[in-house]
Amino acid sequence: MLDYWKDYPNLQQKLTLVQDLMAERLVIQNKEIEGAIQAFSTKGGKLIRPALFFLFAEIAHGEVSDEKFVKIAASLELLHSATLVHDDIIDDSPTRRALPTIQSQFGKDIAVYTGDFIYTIYFELLAETMTGTPFLMKNAKSMKKILQGELHQMSLTYQKDQSIWQYLKSINGKTAELISLSCWEGTYFGGADLVTQARAKRIGKAIGLAFQVYDDILNFSLDLGSDEKPILTDVVQGIYTYPLLAAKNNSPEKINPYLIHPENLSIKERTELAELVAETGGLEDALIFAEKLTEKAIREIDLLPESASKETLKSITVDLLHRAY
Amino acid sequence: MLDYWKDYPNLQQKLTLVQDLMAERLVIQNKEIEGAIQAFSTKGGKLIRPALFFLFAEIAHGEVSDEKFVKIAASLELLHSATLVHDDIIDDSPTRRALPTIQSQFGKDIAVYTGDFIYTIYFELLAETMTGTPFLMKNAKSMKKILQGELHQMSLTYQKDQSIWQYLKSINGKTAELISLSCWEGTYFGGADLVTQARAKRIGKAIGLAFQVYDDILNFSLDLGSDEKPILTDVVQGIYTYPLLAAKNNSPEKINPYLIHPENLSIKERTELAELVAETGGLEDALIFAEKLTEKAIREIDLLPESASKETLKSITVDLLHRAY
Repeated sequence: MLDYWKDYPNLQQKLTLVQDLMAERLVIQNKEIEGAIQAFSTKGGKLIRPALFFLFAEIAHGEVSDEKFVKIAASLELLHSATLVHDDIIDDSPTRRALPTIQSQFGKDIAVYTGDFIYTIYFELLAETMTGTPFLMKNAKSMKKILQGELHQMSLTYQKDQSIWQYLKSINGKTAELISLSCWEGTYFGGADLVTQARAKRIGKAIGLAFQVYDDILNFSLDLGSDEKPILTDVVQGIYTYPLLAAKNNSPEKINPYLIHPENLSIKERTELAELVAETGGLEDALIFAEKLTEKAIREIDLLPESASKETLKSITVDLLHRAY
Repeated sequence: MLDYWKDYPNLQQKLTLVQDLMAERLVIQNKEIEGAIQAFSTKGGKLIRPALFFLFAEIAHGEVSDEKFVKIAASLELLHSATLVHDDIIDDSPTRRALPTIQSQFGKDIAVYTGDFIYTIYFELLAETMTGTPFLMKNAKSMKKILQGELHQMSLTYQKDQSIWQYLKSINGKTAELISLSCWEGTYFGGADLVTQARAKRIGKAIGLAFQVYDDILNFSLDLGSDEKPILTDVVQGIYTYPLLAAKNNSPEKINPYLIHPENLSIKERTELAELVAETGGLEDALIFAEKLTEKAIREIDLLPESASKETLKSITVDLLHRAY
């Protein structure tokens, strides 16, 4: 998946170092499970969080080739990987990133400990790089917010009277927190001033929220039968996202009947519901909201110190937030 | 369960502070889940790890009333709690410490995130107390060993040709590591010299191993039908511990037939197997091994600097390691 970065060879090369470091650390006795963890953590994703971290570090500092930066970048991806392994247990997902999930290969039991084990490597990298900085504590706080977000989302499951505000609060923890931390850490460890650090944090928050809302939109707009992400899996699992909640606000009488037993929706009913969410303006409202966040991110990126990395950041932000179109 | 410490009011009072601190930190939005986490983490256990930490700190240092000590003590118990919450998912246990488990109350999904959330509070307490000390890294290494131990144990499940050595390696990570860390941290933060620190670490390792072997013996020796720990639950789940492995070494022809489909053993067959493990010397071998470890621990405790806490440590070590008799 690092092909995604082929137009940015300098960044791609750093992300390769991050992959190598993760593979070097994710070592356990059972080689079969080790292989699966390594494949999952190093081969599957785009490494968006490490990429943002490097770009912000470079904006602050110029070239960053110190091993410390590679370790911090890896810590961000590992925290993300650990939560994904545990998410897949909960979603019972057969695949993630076009690879079988740990739980589908080895069962829930191994997946629980595997996620925990990845947390330990994350923690080890922090201990190696952040002692004496405020970012050890900030990582602890972020990890706490992420988990509170996940627990909050779980407690909203099948709650059809939740507000868009509650949904945003849960994705703020679940997704935006770590992306924001990635950007913030980049500027801090790159040596940026406090104004730039605060800006990086806000940019990350906006990118993270927009990223998740677009992802949620995709769940409503992908063609039926696509292997990558089948339509309305979220609704069936009782996870009500922006498009659905906006549609329900606009036309409760049309949407509510589908939320009586969403876990039993047939493919036909899911198609109807997806069409209703579009017709009643739910998709459009979500898109407008995500567009505003993207614009906010771009506006703030424009205010960062000039550099080649800033231009890269701008184009990948636009690209990441428009991947559906 | 702090009643366990009623003969040591000074220690009991400190452990109450540890419980209070955990309750203060384990705060989430969903009050029902919060109540269960708090009950589980603060009301259920004896707080053995915090108790050992305080005793070793006092042996090193005299009286310890600083809030930092309460936080470190709580961090040890929280790491333990997080692994227990995840263990219960894997074991599918209905109860733990005479309370319903998180997974039996709220399902596996909540239990996965609940364990993760407890890790974050553990991590937060470390960030508050250990920056600039080597114990941040030592905690990361210990957490890694604990998880590697758990994964190692999982990969040994239903492996009837495993050696006693492999079993010991897995409990060394799973149980002894954290108890050893508790003792070591006590001496370090209490200001003890390096010789005393190394001794504390070894005492903890011996106590931890003995503790687990006795626990495994209990699984073979408790009366059938006891609610607290039904007989041979380990074997049925494919977890082969010291007594069974020793019995199998002594008389493979008698034990092996029961390990063809241990998951299907009837209550009658379990009783037969428990009797065979006793008859073939498996229980006795395990007891001798645990006794040797206990003696080693006591011998090393005798070499610690004299203090009232040393006497307390000695008597609770004897008590903890003889709770079955």
